[in-house]
Amino acid sequence: MNAPAASTPTLRLRAIHSFFVGGRTVALQGLPVEQHRFAQNGAARAVDPNGHYRSGQMYVQAFLQAQPSGRPPVLLWHGGGMTGVNWETTPDGRPGWRDAFLRAGYDVYVSDAVERGRAGWSRWPDIYEAPPLHRTLEEGWDMFRIGPAGGWHEHATQRRAHPGGQFPAAAFDDFATQWVPRWAGHEALTLAAYDALLQRIGRCIVIGHSQGGGFALEAVRRRPHDVAAVVAIEPSGAPAQAGATLPPHLYVWGDHVQAHPVWRGYRETVERHAQGVRAAGGRADVLDLPREGVHGNSHFPMLDLNAADVAGRVLSWLDGVLEPPDPAT
Amino acid sequence: MNAPAASTPTLRLRAIHSFFVGGRTVALQGLPVEQHRFAQNGAARAVDPNGHYRSGQMYVQAFLQAQPSGRPPVLLWHGGGMTGVNWETTPDGRPGWRDAFLRAGYDVYVSDAVERGRAGWSRWPDIYEAPPLHRTLEEGWDMFRIGPAGGWHEHATQRRAHPGGQFPAAAFDDFATQWVPRWAGHEALTLAAYDALLQRIGRCIVIGHSQGGGFALEAVRRRPHDVAAVVAIEPSGAPAQAGATLPPHLYVWGDHVQAHPVWRGYRETVERHAQGVRAAGGRADVLDLPREGVHGNSHFPMLDLNAADVAGRVLSWLDGVLEPPDPAT
Repeated sequence: MNAPAASTPTLRLRAIHSFFVGGRTVALQGLPVEQHRFAQNGAARAVDPNGHYRSGQMYVQAFLQAQPSGRPPVLLWHGGGMTGVNWETTPDGRPGWRDAFLRAGYDVYVSDAVERGRAGWSRWPDIYEAPPLHRTLEEGWDMFRIGPAGGWHEHATQRRAHPGGQFPAAAFDDFATQWVPRWAGHEALTLAAYDALLQRIGRCIVIGHSQGGGFALEAVRRRPHDVAAVVAIEPSGAPAQAGATLPPHLYVWGDHVQAHPVWRGYRETVERHAQGVRAAGGRADVLDLPREGVHGNSHFPMLDLNAADVAGRVLSWLDGVLEPPDPAT
Repeated sequence: MNAPAASTPTLRLRAIHSFFVGGRTVALQGLPVEQHRFAQNGAARAVDPNGHYRSGQMYVQAFLQAQPSGRPPVLLWHGGGMTGVNWETTPDGRPGWRDAFLRAGYDVYVSDAVERGRAGWSRWPDIYEAPPLHRTLEEGWDMFRIGPAGGWHEHATQRRAHPGGQFPAAAFDDFATQWVPRWAGHEALTLAAYDALLQRIGRCIVIGHSQGGGFALEAVRRRPHDVAAVVAIEPSGAPAQAGATLPPHLYVWGDHVQAHPVWRGYRETVERHAQGVRAAGGRADVLDLPREGVHGNSHFPMLDLNAADVAGRVLSWLDGVLEPPDPAT
């Protein structure tokens, strides 16, 4: 059942609730009536696609402590082709980073970005312009740095993972059940919803992974006063301008980055962003795991076998940069 | 923030975790390499869709009590074009049925069925045969019995809801942010994953809504010994054969069913199923809300303004049909 051991301390929450932010109502007209077959071997039935749709919203699930810590809440933003599930439970059944931050006393908000998971997605080419992208297991194995390009094989025994890798490679295909389709070119749409989320939550800590790390850096640039600290886990991009009056930044990197041409390029972009933060008088720290003697992390340190260790390092960094909690709250 | 009042009792949980069940790995080959534009005004980049994909899994989020009640856990199955969000928080921000069952002491499993929400979905026509269906606000207003057909209007002041209706109609467009695309004709695919879920969880209570109510009735027919009781909330269908040795069944109906031609037809099918359960010696109870003096319920009694009252009636029914909990657990 993958349930944690009974010895795990009890989670005491005042509420678990969910909501949507962002989006708009879109009208479609002039489309042909469609024929859909609702039952196998049944007759096709007419369905009129003309009318109004909601589009562009994102989904947020909030986990709120029974005893508030007085610290800003943590927002967990997933990467491209993923959902908030990335933060819940690892593919091999260990508690994820949502639990790590809850058990450290933070309120935690886990979201599904626009077009991903429970946020829903819209018709194309009527509302979205282009068709979606579906990621193959082969591409994920390489891009997520589980092993070398071409290292995935249909038969698990014939796969090549990075020696000493921290990713639970035997659960890689289970990990792929978490993947959802994505669209290219929806940055503005996605950022608009993240902006609405920051506006709604108020002062918070944003932890973004991969594409979500790039969104976090850009969202913080736009609303620096709503963010107490930002953690970009292997961001796949960064805004060209860092902005001014920025909160503390932490950039987290796993292993095998320099050896991967795409990730080496992404990291160069992100290093320039860190320099921009520092040039503006901000704090920009880098948690380079191999440089700290922690080897073998994939693109998903929150799923790796040492995920609890990496979470602990991020929590320690937060302890160092956050103002002491207000005892009155 | 829609957060419940601070006076709500604390939820004490030993774990919140998630997992996927069902599905398979699918290979695609011979497809043309696609061109996708990843940045606005950027150059298109080649993406090779050939390779392997996971398909057919469903997503489950488990909420487990710190103090187990000894009762079977409750599985909440959403309806067509929906996700598990239906059970979380109402569109106007009240706690949903997940909370009602958690606060009554049950372990609760909330799922996203195959192709919905966090379960992900697959390419078509390569893996799925047909394109998806997206529901308009106009269709939802009618089919969910918020008001008469044609009663939705772009301007909220010009909408016509059923007089005395229990649905929080002012939040109807917010409700539509919960809707996700669906496919027609995926019954076998979806039921295969539900079957894997029942196999994994073991003895449980299944509460299914609308399309999920029909799936619940069929899943119970297939695995009667894994189900302690089944509650079908406004099921949009039922298997032709009820099966033998069945656990207790409860069918829940809201208002305006007889006046709606589609729902009148669905209900006739379901009434025949209830008769089949009784003919096989099983218990088949009907909670007809208007007949009990509870008027105005929509197709979504778990979202209606009297949702807590309806949940209480379902909980009372469960108290009456379940065996007393084993004090040893």
